[in-house]
Amino acid sequence: MTRTTESQMVRQRIRRGDYDGQTSGLAPGHVQGNLIILPQDWAAEFLRFCQLNPKPCPLLSVSEPGSPYVPSLGAEIDLRTDLPRYRVYRNGDLVDRPTDISALWREDLVAFLIGCSFSFEDALTSDGIPLRHQTLGKVVPMYRTSILCVPAGRFSGPMVVSMRPMKAADAIRAVQITTRFPAVHGAPVHLGRPDLIGISKISQPDYGEAIPVEEDEMPVFWACGVTPQAALLAARPPLAIGHEPGCMLVTDLLNSRQASF
Amino acid sequence: MTRTTESQMVRQRIRRGDYDGQTSGLAPGHVQGNLIILPQDWAAEFLRFCQLNPKPCPLLSVSEPGSPYVPSLGAEIDLRTDLPRYRVYRNGDLVDRPTDISALWREDLVAFLIGCSFSFEDALTSDGIPLRHQTLGKVVPMYRTSILCVPAGRFSGPMVVSMRPMKAADAIRAVQITTRFPAVHGAPVHLGRPDLIGISKISQPDYGEAIPVEEDEMPVFWACGVTPQAALLAARPPLAIGHEPGCMLVTDLLNSRQASF
Repeated sequence: MTRTTESQMVRQRIRRGDYDGQTSGLAPGHVQGNLIILPQDWAAEFLRFCQLNPKPCPLLSVSEPGSPYVPSLGAEIDLRTDLPRYRVYRNGDLVDRPTDISALWREDLVAFLIGCSFSFEDALTSDGIPLRHQTLGKVVPMYRTSILCVPAGRFSGPMVVSMRPMKAADAIRAVQITTRFPAVHGAPVHLGRPDLIGISKISQPDYGEAIPVEEDEMPVFWACGVTPQAALLAARPPLAIGHEPGCMLVTDLLNSRQASF
Repeated sequence: MTRTTESQMVRQRIRRGDYDGQTSGLAPGHVQGNLIILPQDWAAEFLRFCQLNPKPCPLLSVSEPGSPYVPSLGAEIDLRTDLPRYRVYRNGDLVDRPTDISALWREDLVAFLIGCSFSFEDALTSDGIPLRHQTLGKVVPMYRTSILCVPAGRFSGPMVVSMRPMKAADAIRAVQITTRFPAVHGAPVHLGRPDLIGISKISQPDYGEAIPVEEDEMPVFWACGVTPQAALLAARPPLAIGHEPGCMLVTDLLNSRQASF
C-alpha cells in the first residue's frame, strides 16, 4: 500500500525532528499508544503484569526482543525516533528527556505499547457526551486508589484511575460505549463515591489537573495507563524508557476499529 | 412440535383452575409478560404510547383485534384463561379480580404483552450479582419519578422505576448485562442520587416494598412496567383488563433469547 495516512505524516514530521510537542489532537481518529521499553530480563514479568491487569494495562503490541518495530501498529514505525519526546529512567530515576533514543537502543530491549483513553474519549464525544477536562483544556485528573493490581514478580502497586464527571444518564451511556473498547481500558472500574476506592480528596488528583464535579454529577473512574508506569518506576529497573507525558506514539490503527462489536 | 415445555405445563395447570397464585419462579428461564387489554378505540393510542416510551413499555406482542391469542409467545396461549388472576377496571376503578375472563371477552378487545424485569434479573443473578429484594423475599421497590413519559393521545404520566441497591462495580456490570436486554426494559435509566429524578424518600416506595440501601451501595433504577399500567388507569378507559400483581403470563420464550447480542 503506497497511500500515506495522516498518522504516517505525523510520524515522519516527528522523525525528521520537526515536532516535539504533545500528540493530542494529531491525526484525529487514530489510536495513540503509551510506550514502555524494558530490558528483556524484566520484560517477561512486565508482560505478565499487563496480562494480569488488562484494564489499566491494555496491550496494543509488544515488540520482538531487540526490535524497535511494531508492524501491527504501522508498517514503518521506528520506536527509536517516532515519538516527540522520551523519558529515560535508570533505577527508577528520570535521567534524560531526549527526542531520539537511537543511541540508547540495545539488542535486549523490548517495547510495550499500551492503549490510551484518547481512543474511548473519541467515542464518547462523538456520542454527544461532553468531557469537562477537554472543554476546560486541562489534563484529565488521575488518582491512586486502594484497588491493588495483581502483582507479577517485581511489579505491583495500586491501580491509578482517571476521572470524568458526568450526569447519571451520561454515565450509564458511557458504560455502554466504553464496554465496547476493551483494548483501550474498557468500562469504568467505579462510579459515585470516591472514598470507596480510597480517594480522599477529589479536588486533589495525584496526576493531571483538578476539575470540578458539579452538584448534579457523579465522578466516573476508568483504569488508567499511568498504573503500569507507576508500577514500573517503583520496581526500579536498571533501564526503562517511556514517553514524555502527552507525547505518545501515533499509530495507523483507527479508534473506531478498537470497538469489539 | 409435540414437545410440552415447562411453560406450557404451567399454563395448562392455570387454565384448568388448579393454580391462582404468583408466577414468580414458575417455569424458570421463561419470559413472563405483563398483560393489558383495551377496547380497540383505545388500543391504537396505547400502542403509540408504548412505542414512544420503549424503556418502561417494552412490547413483547400485541394481539389481533378480537383475538385472545398471541402465537409468537406460545402456540396455544389463550389470554382469557392462562393467567392465574386478572384485574378488571371500569373507568379506571378496580371492579373484579376473576381467574378467567372468557365471559368478558369481546370482538373489539386488543391485548398487549409487556416485558418484565424478571427476565433481566435472571441474567443478573446468573452473573453472580445479588438482588436484595430476592434474598429478603420482598417485592422490588418502585417509585414514581419526575421523568415524564412522552404523551400519546389520552395516555401520559410519570415514568415509574424499580430500584435495586448495588455496589458500584456491580452497578457497572448490571449496565452491561441489561443493555443486552432492550426487550425487557434494557439498561438503567438512573443511578446514584434519587432526588435527581424526583424521589424524595428512598425508604418510601410508591409500589412494592422498601429495602435498605447499604452504606457502600448506590440505588440503581430501571424503567418499570408499572408505568403503562399507571398511565392507563389515569386515562380511565371504560374497560381495561390487567393481571393481578405478580400473576403474569408465562410464555414459551426463553429469557436468554431476549439478549440482543
